[in-house]
Amino acid sequence: MTGEHTVQVYYEDTDFSGLVYHANYLKFFERAREHLLGRERLVELWDVQGVGFVVYRASMNFREGAKFGDVLRIRTTVTLQSAYRACFHQSAWRDGGERALVEAEIDLVCVDRTERLVALPDVVRSLIAEPPVGS
Amino acid sequence: MTGEHTVQVYYEDTDFSGLVYHANYLKFFERAREHLLGRERLVELWDVQGVGFVVYRASMNFREGAKFGDVLRIRTTVTLQSAYRACFHQSAWRDGGERALVEAEIDLVCVDRTERLVALPDVVRSLIAEPPVGS
Amino acid sequence: MTGEHTVQVYYEDTDFSGLVYHANYLKFFERAREHLLGRERLVELWDVQGVGFVVYRASMNFREGAKFGDVLRIRTTVTLQSAYRACFHQSAWRDGGERALVEAEIDLVCVDRTERLVALPDVVRSLIAEPPVGS
Amino acid sequence: MTGEHTVQVYYEDTDFSGLVYHANYLKFFERAREHLLGRERLVELWDVQGVGFVVYRASMNFREGAKFGDVLRIRTTVTLQSAYRACFHQSAWRDGGERALVEAEIDLVCVDRTERLVALPDVVRSLIAEPPVGS
Repeated sequence: MTGEHTVQVYYEDTDFSGLVYHANYLKFFERAREHLLGRERLVELWDVQGVGFVVYRASMNFREGAKFGDVLRIRTTVTLQSAYRACFHQSAWRDGGERALVEAEIDLVCVDRTERLVALPDVVRSLIAEPPVGS
Repeated sequence: MTGEHTVQVYYEDTDFSGLVYHANYLKFFERAREHLLGRERLVELWDVQGVGFVVYRASMNFREGAKFGDVLRIRTTVTLQSAYRACFHQSAWRDGGERALVEAEIDLVCVDRTERLVALPDVVRSLIAEPPVGS
Repeated sequence: MTGEHTVQVYYEDTDFSGLVYHANYLKFFERAREHLLGRERLVELWDVQGVGFVVYRASMNFREGAKFGDVLRIRTTVTLQSAYRACFHQSAWRDGGERALVEAEIDLVCVDRTERLVALPDVVRSLIAEPPVGS
Repeated sequence: MTGEHTVQVYYEDTDFSGLVYHANYLKFFERAREHLLGRERLVELWDVQGVGFVVYRASMNFREGAKFGDVLRIRTTVTLQSAYRACFHQSAWRDGGERALVEAEIDLVCVDRTERLVALPDVVRSLIAEPPVGS
């Protein structure tokens, strides 16, 4: 399953160096994941089944900084690593750029309301297993 | 000049109470102002003229909290208070809601790169003075 | 009841203008309130009684911006406005500064886990009613 | 060079899951690095020499979530990888905990005001090379 989500760089995202504060790319990546999995699906999983997502591992490479006013494309590909873990390959691209500014691999697991590990819900697993549109 | 901007409530926006963290409405309001004034115009003002916007005064009333997954409409009306100050009336509405969750009045001034007060640029003043679309 | 709390301005607090992002003063003020009321008391109120604090109204005046590396003193005075509302007068001072950089009045109420308004807990009311140390 | 820095978990740090939002550990780690290298030294490097630090690579493992009110010890060990790169091993510990909640390796480089890579300043290199206190 793959997707693309657009974010705009606002005042709040930058720091005094003039560039986006490094931790904020994790926010951009999470927004993209939420759009990919679907807002209503995530709300229902939490409200009805008491299942939420937790970041288990993240690794990031920062190649170039984005600036105030930049429009970034967040590209995401997600694969199932096991019944418990989903691996998201994500990258941030400046509009028209030739290489990613930031690249990340982010692994997520699911927990219940008591923070115990649970299997990824079926609806999420079948969603992730979907072939990319057009293939 | 009036406008409406949509924001979605992500994980990052909430706190452990389950609702949006109060300070984050100021972020939503600023995003809406940036869209209203225009990303490219703001970037050019800063890069070419060295003029930026600074919040001078803000007052907010919090009536009801937004939740994860909510889609909020940020409504903005801006008026010129003087050659130096623009006053933004802003409010956050849940999609389909009957009253605003949060209402704010936020006054902005302009400063140069040495943080000295300067008059609002002409392009901003004429933009603000525009009558609402349809009137 | 009055108190003073120190915060340091980190990278994360600034934006590309070089100054502290305006919404972050609300974070500084909340940290100061939490230290004033007491971390353990707040945790117990939430965990045992299901009572949390919510910002109901906030008004702020921004006079001067703090910079990366600044050490700020957050001064807080709190008064009871009613059985339901506490009013916090808060200001941010640069170490050795002659006037506040930012001043705020922030009203808080209490809610239960279903977000219904409840009276301020007795422990909070008696704490707030304490005369300042030394008087 | 090693150090320990204490952070308290505030409302702002949590999300609706009840735990600290994952990206905020990067903020905690950066605060710890700034205390280790020294606030005044970092301000002077930026203001006088125009040299700032940029995160180049980060990898994190999240084992357990911190909660509102937790007091976390951020432990940091830094080594020189080359004349250009410093590697920070950082971890977050709950007071009295037996294992780290979160562990990270974060590589930093230095850039000048035009975002060009520069060697780590001598003062930083000699600081990092210092043996731990007591050894």
